[in-house]
Amino acid sequence: MSQDNRRVLALAGGVGGAKLALGLSAVLPADALTVAVNTADDFEHLGLSISPDLDTVMYTLSGLANPETGWGRRDESWNAMAALEQLGGETWFRLGDKDLATHIERTRRLRAGETLSAVTRDLAQRLGIKCAVVPMTDSPVRTVVTADQGDLAFQDWFVRLRCEPAVRRIRFAGADKARANPALLDMVKLRGVVFCPSNPFVSVAPILAIPGVRMTLQQTRVPRVAVTPIVGGQAIKGPAAKMLAELGHDVSALGVARYYKGLIDGFVLDQADASLKAEIEGLGIKVHVADTMMHTDNDKRRLAAATLEFVDALARSLQHS
Amino acid sequence: MSQDNRRVLALAGGVGGAKLALGLSAVLPADALTVAVNTADDFEHLGLSISPDLDTVMYTLSGLANPETGWGRRDESWNAMAALEQLGGETWFRLGDKDLATHIERTRRLRAGETLSAVTRDLAQRLGIKCAVVPMTDSPVRTVVTADQGDLAFQDWFVRLRCEPAVRRIRFAGADKARANPALLDMVKLRGVVFCPSNPFVSVAPILAIPGVRMTLQQTRVPRVAVTPIVGGQAIKGPAAKMLAELGHDVSALGVARYYKGLIDGFVLDQADASLKAEIEGLGIKVHVADTMMHTDNDKRRLAAATLEFVDALARSLQHS
Repeated sequence: MSQDNRRVLALAGGVGGAKLALGLSAVLPADALTVAVNTADDFEHLGLSISPDLDTVMYTLSGLANPETGWGRRDESWNAMAALEQLGGETWFRLGDKDLATHIERTRRLRAGETLSAVTRDLAQRLGIKCAVVPMTDSPVRTVVTADQGDLAFQDWFVRLRCEPAVRRIRFAGADKARANPALLDMVKLRGVVFCPSNPFVSVAPILAIPGVRMTLQQTRVPRVAVTPIVGGQAIKGPAAKMLAELGHDVSALGVARYYKGLIDGFVLDQADASLKAEIEGLGIKVHVADTMMHTDNDKRRLAAATLEFVDALARSLQHS
Repeated sequence: MSQDNRRVLALAGGVGGAKLALGLSAVLPADALTVAVNTADDFEHLGLSISPDLDTVMYTLSGLANPETGWGRRDESWNAMAALEQLGGETWFRLGDKDLATHIERTRRLRAGETLSAVTRDLAQRLGIKCAVVPMTDSPVRTVVTADQGDLAFQDWFVRLRCEPAVRRIRFAGADKARANPALLDMVKLRGVVFCPSNPFVSVAPILAIPGVRMTLQQTRVPRVAVTPIVGGQAIKGPAAKMLAELGHDVSALGVARYYKGLIDGFVLDQADASLKAEIEGLGIKVHVADTMMHTDNDKRRLAAATLEFVDALARSLQHS
């Protein structure tokens, strides 16, 4: 039975999530993929509404992403930032000239009363993106990192303080009052749910924190697969490993699998961590071992295809269980 | 008696005003010049607070102005505009990448509750400007052009419609409730007032429309000199000649002198219009004939010096009258 006409829901944060989303978009028909993106990193800066993860996903899917930084646009110029520096403005959060246009246009339209999902749909379409990219919610949700010195807004901790303060606790202000994007609550005719290799604590957890999302994922019979963001005890990018340690988890793919227990049927483990397979399976989670490193576009397609095969295999075994 | 320690107040709009302001700043000590700038062209665009005349004056005084366009910064790049176009944003008002920084920083600070004069003072200082640059007011004043098709916001008429609709009437919304910058009302210890060669109807008139300014200028014994913005029946730049015609004035330096009657003691007439000298003097206005074309920085200094000499000569004759 072909599953190809049914939709895949991918949960994504920034760089890692965007890479797998690009792979999925390359191997799936345009109408068979919805990427639901974390917006708890969003913030207001320089009077602009900035959505870092949405932008990373959009730029990656449209081929505009800067492959070196993991954020912002390729072939970018920095003349506005240089001029802002001369004027004494805040330049710790680097906004390229082309990237600025995204923030200016989004901010203008949000202020005019449009929803973030409507603006995102239009921007994605303008950038030539065929699949659906949706913010996890149109409501404001903001990650707050509690460190020893007190609460820090996420970008303060992440960019300005370079993730240095040890993390004691993470919360998502506004999540309890947020309304999830409908794509996150509708499991009907879904081929599978893919937890992209994004930071579990600050990219995927905010999505799960929106009322209804966690329960919907817990209760669905649709196969749910997470792709590991941790390889050999290291995060591919970003502070996931540091957070695992500081929040008292095992700093490994096993720690991530435990964190997702009850929410996933399958876990894509990197070949470097194959020794963890039995322990993860001991959690009642099926494991598929693969090369999860996504250096090239071909790597992304290959991992996406392997993940979908795993999803479909899980669907068959779930039907038989 | 030396007048050099006393302040000159220059009234300026965009390009022409900025050029003479630069000349004045070159021949005067830093603390002896205040440039009061029209803000009725200001508008909100793309969510940004844009002050075209303040920027033209600041960029000109700091050597950053684009000499070819008369607006914006030199050595500018346009990557944000190109990206905005791709996103379907409004691009009829061209904002360069470096220029954007000015608008972003000003907007952020205005939203944070700072006054336009405080923001302008800091921006000017950051750009290395030594003399005082002040907005005519911190209150919102907006030029409205009445054309056959109805009322048009100034930048709509000026930039988007390229000054094409015939002008029936001009008003300055908000001017009646605006509070003038103190520099416009304080004639004490002033060496002179210079009406820069800016558009009389949309650059100088808004300044005069703020409560108290016209009367202060009418009543002062400080010499007041206008430098012609019209040479040979043509505006050096912009729609001044077209406006003179459409508003029923003589399309000449004489038309401008008549418009300023009662507000000025002296008029700097271009040598090409020397034949108008007697008629302007017939209005009770002294005339100084000069080369008013400001192609080079040396031209600007020369015209500024000639204007100041004329101011001082008028001061002597006013003392004797």
